[in-house]
Amino acid sequence: MKKSLGAKTLLYPAPILVVCTYDKEGSPNAMTAAWGGICCSAPPCVAVSLRKATYSYDNLMLKKAFTINIPSENYAKEADYFGIASRHKEDKFAKTGLTAVKSDHIDAPYIREFPINLECKVIQFIELGLHTQFIGEVMDVKMDESIQEKGGQSIIEQIKPLIFAADSGHYYGVGKQVAQAFSIGKDLLKKEK
Amino acid sequence: MKKSLGAKTLLYPAPILVVCTYDKEGSPNAMTAAWGGICCSAPPCVAVSLRKATYSYDNLMLKKAFTINIPSENYAKEADYFGIASRHKEDKFAKTGLTAVKSDHIDAPYIREFPINLECKVIQFIELGLHTQFIGEVMDVKMDESIQEKGGQSIIEQIKPLIFAADSGHYYGVGKQVAQAFSIGKDLLKKEK
Repeated sequence: MKKSLGAKTLLYPAPILVVCTYDKEGSPNAMTAAWGGICCSAPPCVAVSLRKATYSYDNLMLKKAFTINIPSENYAKEADYFGIASRHKEDKFAKTGLTAVKSDHIDAPYIREFPINLECKVIQFIELGLHTQFIGEVMDVKMDESIQEKGGQSIIEQIKPLIFAADSGHYYGVGKQVAQAFSIGKDLLKKEK
Repeated sequence: MKKSLGAKTLLYPAPILVVCTYDKEGSPNAMTAAWGGICCSAPPCVAVSLRKATYSYDNLMLKKAFTINIPSENYAKEADYFGIASRHKEDKFAKTGLTAVKSDHIDAPYIREFPINLECKVIQFIELGLHTQFIGEVMDVKMDESIQEKGGQSIIEQIKPLIFAADSGHYYGVGKQVAQAFSIGKDLLKKEK
């Protein structure tokens, strides 16, 4: 049997995405968002939703550019700080000591210490209510050289991204491999009915 | 140092979302999508992207309604099957033996056996290229009665959702709790600079 919880934002897993932008003076900022994900394969696009009250919202509207930076588990503290602090009050890069690097393709910085960085050009924004959803076309993905793309551990096991559990307000790590996609379901495909 | 991978859809974690709809005859369908997530807190909204070629795309356009169903790890086979099979060729509910239940608030079915179900009304769709992004306002969330909301294990540990790793094409489970959100970063907030 099911119970009804009402209209809520319970969806699992939610990612932890650190959005980086420059302000009008060219000063870098970082904020954390859990409302986002890939939204198109061709052209490759990501969606991320921000509240209008954030410093990053104005930067995105001005520069039409942002990066998505995926923190590893060992940067949980910095990722959390980027979510609770405001650039209206403090310089987040100075406080964390992390490095803002200018992107190659767009006018936004990425975080050197985070293992994966997506350089994105804003192609649309959609006013939804409390949040505005920004659609960014992925112009390039940067990845730490140390991460092996083939053989051995898969990328996700090497980068160790964080998962956000909205109900309890905890970050989780990625667990064990469960199955091969586009494969385990073939048994059912072959089944006669 | 970083290496450049080009314009790709690498974002971690991506969720495994099973989208359910009715067709014009009222027959239920299910398909799996990894491109989606929450996109607004108020009103609560989810985004999910489908290709035009899917049977579900036509259903969504017709009914302006869908559910998002989160499979547990033990339904990896069914979730994978929903992604590789097409309703153009077979009845996916008949093949899996899963139960399509009519939603309370919208004209779409949800999957009884999956632990969390979001009833969504389409409020916008955005043509992005290969994918069309549907924005659904969450009208209600259904959850298995057996899942405890308070005390003990958090919801995510009880539902055991799947994670999609786009690079290797594997499903992963959720791992260990890493930190408390809106808390672990406070050390940095207090730090003088």
